[in-house]
Amino acid sequence: MRHTSEGRPIKPLNEWTATETVAAIAAGGTSCEAVVRACLDRIAAREAEVGAWAYLDPEAALASARAFDASGKRGPLAGVPFGVKDIIDTFDMPTEWGTPIHKGRRTDRDAACVALSRKAGGVLLGKTVTTEFANLHPGKTRNPHDLTRTPAGSSSGSAAAVADFMVPIAIGTQTTGSTIRPASFCGVFGYRPTYGEHRMHGVMEASGSLDTLGILARSVEDVALYRDVLLGIPPEPIPTLNRAPRIGLCRSHVWDQIEPATRKLVEDAAQHLARAGATVTDFELPADFARLNDAHRWISSFEFARTFTWEIENHWDEISDTLRGGRLNDGINGNFERYIAAKETAAECRARLDSLWGDTDVLLTAAAFGEAPVGLAAFAGVPLFQLWTALHVPQISLPVFKGPNNMPIGAMLIAKRHDDRKLFACAQWATSKLT
Amino acid sequence: MRHTSEGRPIKPLNEWTATETVAAIAAGGTSCEAVVRACLDRIAAREAEVGAWAYLDPEAALASARAFDASGKRGPLAGVPFGVKDIIDTFDMPTEWGTPIHKGRRTDRDAACVALSRKAGGVLLGKTVTTEFANLHPGKTRNPHDLTRTPAGSSSGSAAAVADFMVPIAIGTQTTGSTIRPASFCGVFGYRPTYGEHRMHGVMEASGSLDTLGILARSVEDVALYRDVLLGIPPEPIPTLNRAPRIGLCRSHVWDQIEPATRKLVEDAAQHLARAGATVTDFELPADFARLNDAHRWISSFEFARTFTWEIENHWDEISDTLRGGRLNDGINGNFERYIAAKETAAECRARLDSLWGDTDVLLTAAAFGEAPVGLAAFAGVPLFQLWTALHVPQISLPVFKGPNNMPIGAMLIAKRHDDRKLFACAQWATSKLT
Repeated sequence: MRHTSEGRPIKPLNEWTATETVAAIAAGGTSCEAVVRACLDRIAAREAEVGAWAYLDPEAALASARAFDASGKRGPLAGVPFGVKDIIDTFDMPTEWGTPIHKGRRTDRDAACVALSRKAGGVLLGKTVTTEFANLHPGKTRNPHDLTRTPAGSSSGSAAAVADFMVPIAIGTQTTGSTIRPASFCGVFGYRPTYGEHRMHGVMEASGSLDTLGILARSVEDVALYRDVLLGIPPEPIPTLNRAPRIGLCRSHVWDQIEPATRKLVEDAAQHLARAGATVTDFELPADFARLNDAHRWISSFEFARTFTWEIENHWDEISDTLRGGRLNDGINGNFERYIAAKETAAECRARLDSLWGDTDVLLTAAAFGEAPVGLAAFAGVPLFQLWTALHVPQISLPVFKGPNNMPIGAMLIAKRHDDRKLFACAQWATSKLT
Repeated sequence: MRHTSEGRPIKPLNEWTATETVAAIAAGGTSCEAVVRACLDRIAAREAEVGAWAYLDPEAALASARAFDASGKRGPLAGVPFGVKDIIDTFDMPTEWGTPIHKGRRTDRDAACVALSRKAGGVLLGKTVTTEFANLHPGKTRNPHDLTRTPAGSSSGSAAAVADFMVPIAIGTQTTGSTIRPASFCGVFGYRPTYGEHRMHGVMEASGSLDTLGILARSVEDVALYRDVLLGIPPEPIPTLNRAPRIGLCRSHVWDQIEPATRKLVEDAAQHLARAGATVTDFELPADFARLNDAHRWISSFEFARTFTWEIENHWDEISDTLRGGRLNDGINGNFERYIAAKETAAECRARLDSLWGDTDVLLTAAAFGEAPVGLAAFAGVPLFQLWTALHVPQISLPVFKGPNNMPIGAMLIAKRHDDRKLFACAQWATSKLT
């Protein structure tokens, strides 16, 4: 990338990262209005095909941008447009959860994550498409790299909008693989934080024991910046590694379900990182961690079916067959003893994993079984994520691979709970070596 | 209590427990309308003094009752009026969180716990008073046993309404002692479930790592029944103990802060239960569990201050001095490392407690430092609850003591996580011996 004499990147404003945007606006090199206008122009050109947005009011977004510019407001996200998944409340836009049941739903306040974003100077651009209730039934979004393919879900619009340069950063959520999966398919960074660190107030609950926010962005720096904003703490730079990372190549019990081409990409990457100085060893999970797939299933479905009692009782006919026959069917028929046993399995595996890390900094595995499939619905076939999500560990998908059809595939790094900063440091290092 | 020849208790309909009401309605002995009318009559007579209700529409409540009677609907809570704390969403009533900021706030759906109650046949009577944001700044509620005294909080209205025979059961919540404390002061059963078992969708989040629902009721049977309803599982009877319980008398590190008269009540009760057949031993917590008080403080305040970012940013002047100078001040100035360290302390103590139970069934301690003080505000002085709430264990307050002024004081029983049914069995046994 070329830069101006002042060090600003020469590229359209909508392609700037959040970090670049903040610096440029603070330096007077551009305005929030100009950035938002560039994003809106991109959306105007592409939205009919990509379908990333559930709600967008261009005039209101420009008015917000002008108000920001006039305010002289500062902050770690000052002047940065952001998008939020349409299961996250905003006082000024509807929040419809991807279902006709809640068409036009309005709330009187911002979710904690939205209020924290605005407090930091972010300017809300609009609401991004979610699958129905953040489960599997797809919305209108297509993969911006190939419109015949799925962007994956459930944070479909957040990943597609960031990938297509419509907005630099967006908030998603993850209960299974809802951030990592679309990040991998759309070729952006996707981050699922350590469970429990971010406030979920104003975010539609799916399965409270597993739900987290997710961040979609186009650089690790943006992910790290936005994570701190969403924690409500002063952002800190990504720590500098004083040595190359110690990486555990973790194939996990689902390795055989990953496409051979993807397995080869991950294994080649491990070798490449070793040549670049990393200590790479095989990291084998205990065989019985395979139980976490079922544990995730029974926890998520039991909780989900109770979370949505109101919709089940009052709007059953407006729920998709996918959801009624899938997670809801599991959950409605779920029994409490199995649910508690599943929670205890997950808790036990978490404690055991804590003791297995040794000096390993991060684990490396595939963030998807392969490229995004053709069609908008078929994206959840391989249970890659249940394990990690149930373990409450932070995960990041790095857009560093291309598959046989030149579609993006992510590498996934995983760290110990609460080691999110170390995860970013390793992600930054690995990305620099693999791109 | 006298009974009719059909076994129904002879007392006003508003004094029946939920369990009794379900049986009577199912047997055709009364109607939901008659029960609701009796509750409304009681409220009409007492509400001006007690102030338990944040929202109540008598005509709408009667219409709901008549609709229930006409429906022939069955279910574990069939025809039972219930109240819910005014931080819990309902599609048909406002939910104001005890703050002028959210005056008139409406939502388009029921919280999971409300939908589950209605699904089971419950008839929502109204919304009960909460302190401001379920923190310390009091609402209008007075203690029904002595109107000059506090009912405690934050589930003030739920406890007072149940205590004053306005409604048989009510939902509260607990982040510190918000269910146990008002239950103790108002002389009803108060139950805080194992953390994480009940869905919180549609319930105002305060500090997500600590928040649970709470149940206020006038019998252990009602608590057990309502717990299963709120879990969305078929209710099961309280299990029968095949021997008297093994009770650990647990004074904990706050024992010195409990009034001597209350300490004597608890110690006498332990002796009485031992004479009744229980195995009673002293149960000493590790001394460093005293750290849980601070851990609770830093977890709750860090999360709370971020949860309410929207209100802090947009309505600071409408927040009480109590809250601004208390939990919000702690939280806004809180730092992330101390927050994570506090979470790790809590997690570590939880794991250690798991290994300390041995064959102890339940712990016995005081549910309050003493009687409800005079005045409506001064109820949070003694940190009795932080420890147990941070440990995520189920707790129940039994209304079995009277203090020097003839005001109620609760005995608290505590069980291992997920041993809530055993807790009920022991609570039932202990209550029968102590009353």
